[in-house]
Amino acid sequence: MKKVTVHVTLKQGVLDPQGKAIQTSLHSLGFPEVEEARVGKYIELHMEDDADIEARVKAMCDKLLANPVIEDYRFNVEEAVQS
Amino acid sequence: MKKVTVHVTLKQGVLDPQGKAIQTSLHSLGFPEVEEARVGKYIELHMEDDADIEARVKAMCDKLLANPVIEDYRFNVEEAVQS
Repeated sequence: MKKVTVHVTLKQGVLDPQGKAIQTSLHSLGFPEVEEARVGKYIELHMEDDADIEARVKAMCDKLLANPVIEDYRFNVEEAVQS
Repeated sequence: MKKVTVHVTLKQGVLDPQGKAIQTSLHSLGFPEVEEARVGKYIELHMEDDADIEARVKAMCDKLLANPVIEDYRFNVEEAVQS
């Protein structure tokens, strides 16, 4: 069993209203040192092992998890810790 | 200048309808090997350096970025790469 962690972030230059709202709120809450905030998604997948797992995850990102027009993604495959 | 990356994830046991929807969609798209998907937030902050930066970021998470009732968070502080 593998644990795959995927980070999906807005491309450089794409407006991030949610990040802007966080930055404004942090300023109001007394954290003026925050100059920029950007928000992305973090997705954890638990999946069966597969020789082709990197290609499979890439296909998942391209088809569903990220919007390649405005988002970048990166992922990491590791051994799942059994709980 | 520091770059702070924050991961906010639902606590173990909290229902994750968005993750469930991703899992179901991945199955429909031909990825039956995905046994679980969980979705969280990934936040990047660029901020002025501060001797107390860890405590400041912890306060931001507790006050705004995460809901400590249902979410866990972790963060990492690194040197920002100037672009």
